[in-house]
Amino acid sequence: MDIKSYLSEKRERIDAFLASYFDAPLAPAVLGDAMSYSLLAGGKRLRPILALASHEACGGDAEAIVPYAASLEFIHTYSLIHDDLPAMDNDDLRRGRPTNHKVFGDAMAILAGDALLTEAFYLLSNSPGGARIAPSVRLKVAREIAMASGAHGMVGGQAEDLLSENAPQDIDSLSFIHTHKTGALITASVRIGGLLAGAGKKELRSLTHYGEKIGLAFQIIDDILDIQGDTEELGKQTGSDERKNKMTYPGLYGIETSSRKAQELVDDALFALRAFGDKADALREIARYIIRRRN
Amino acid sequence: MDIKSYLSEKRERIDAFLASYFDAPLAPAVLGDAMSYSLLAGGKRLRPILALASHEACGGDAEAIVPYAASLEFIHTYSLIHDDLPAMDNDDLRRGRPTNHKVFGDAMAILAGDALLTEAFYLLSNSPGGARIAPSVRLKVAREIAMASGAHGMVGGQAEDLLSENAPQDIDSLSFIHTHKTGALITASVRIGGLLAGAGKKELRSLTHYGEKIGLAFQIIDDILDIQGDTEELGKQTGSDERKNKMTYPGLYGIETSSRKAQELVDDALFALRAFGDKADALREIARYIIRRRN
Repeated sequence: MDIKSYLSEKRERIDAFLASYFDAPLAPAVLGDAMSYSLLAGGKRLRPILALASHEACGGDAEAIVPYAASLEFIHTYSLIHDDLPAMDNDDLRRGRPTNHKVFGDAMAILAGDALLTEAFYLLSNSPGGARIAPSVRLKVAREIAMASGAHGMVGGQAEDLLSENAPQDIDSLSFIHTHKTGALITASVRIGGLLAGAGKKELRSLTHYGEKIGLAFQIIDDILDIQGDTEELGKQTGSDERKNKMTYPGLYGIETSSRKAQELVDDALFALRAFGDKADALREIARYIIRRRN
Repeated sequence: MDIKSYLSEKRERIDAFLASYFDAPLAPAVLGDAMSYSLLAGGKRLRPILALASHEACGGDAEAIVPYAASLEFIHTYSLIHDDLPAMDNDDLRRGRPTNHKVFGDAMAILAGDALLTEAFYLLSNSPGGARIAPSVRLKVAREIAMASGAHGMVGGQAEDLLSENAPQDIDSLSFIHTHKTGALITASVRIGGLLAGAGKKELRSLTHYGEKIGLAFQIIDDILDIQGDTEELGKQTGSDERKNKMTYPGLYGIETSSRKAQELVDDALFALRAFGDKADALREIARYIIRRRN
């Protein structure tokens, strides 16, 4: 399969849905501007695409779950806005543009993040056209995403990340940060695609393994790109982990060992999908893409 | 009915539920500490109690919906933590204690708020013991709360409030702030109590009117207390609206006219409940309490 056109086709579908959210005017307008500034800044849409691809791998029709997939990007974007704040990571560049607070100020950036997070759960509980999906499944999906994003998931990981700055290097802490800060929501993205397709326990277990492996591989590559990548290609400042004295995989193990680890994780992810037929080819190609990517 | 013991009994029930959330240890521990510091600081629990009272007014058993009611306090508390940040209202005192960021720092306060907001939706989609309530109703409740808290509700109101500081006094803007920043979530609190009891359209319409009226009355009294109240009794600094040049009801109309308006709103709220029997007495007493309160 042609993964490049698959990714761009799905990305365009997600982008169109995200843009349509702003069809209804928001008051005050600047709040809507701040939300759309970051949401429509053209990310990779990895999490939504994973949900769509996993839905297809389980025999579902991707079009039916676009609002659910899009909710993941609302959450991911809110987390980027808040992480970039001066009080947090204090980053100036994101997705090739000045960060949200640089344009709208800290207060509006905090509110734009709060609004995006809340609207994600509006989408999950409203989801027009979701009538084909049983309410009990929709609740399960909302719960899964809340669990992965909240205190026991992403926010917990970010809190640990903050605390670990300038602290002694500690592999347990690094592993906690990776599995929580990025891993949990990536795994949830894969799992909800399956849940919404009515996947059985065995399929969900395989998808969970796949998600955990690519989530960690994604983070390792992210850390390597922060050292070796190109600021322009990445759309964010490189070298920021080292400046902030952040614990990273390559920082702890070196780039070569980290690259090998990422490749092993992708192999494990592919192995987890062994019982799936060619419907899972997109998931397989995404796993391979994750270590090939330059941004 | 004895409203004082009703309120304290319900408050204790909500407080016990909120405290039980922290039975499961959180990692990192300081995130859990920051969340519980503000969540368990002993607020009035007005929103949860409104949900319980409205549930009872529609013939429901309050005990069955405690997790739903508690989720409202998670949301209210997150909004207080974020509003108090230096980048926002920059307040030092809340519920009689130093504000969250004063104790845990800005970054952890932002994360504690994010986590509380997310956990609210975890509660709404998980709600153990909620099996008696149909999943479609539970989705409706989550949607209602998301709508009232997000860009079209509370966050929109807070954004307008920020923009209105030092702007020319404008009654439309003041009304927008009141209905969105506090009114929307108070109205939703009343409505979800009804929704969870299977209230019909007519009952819900009455509850909506009641909620809108007491929501505005509550805000007017809040503004009056900011001028006339006692810092110790209130647990927050008085005079802060004037210092920040915030638009308020008493600022625009004077205290006497504002007090009269609050009383009229409470009368309207009581009128909205005219078709309800004595099961709605708690709602009636809460409306009266709202203008009598000293904190």
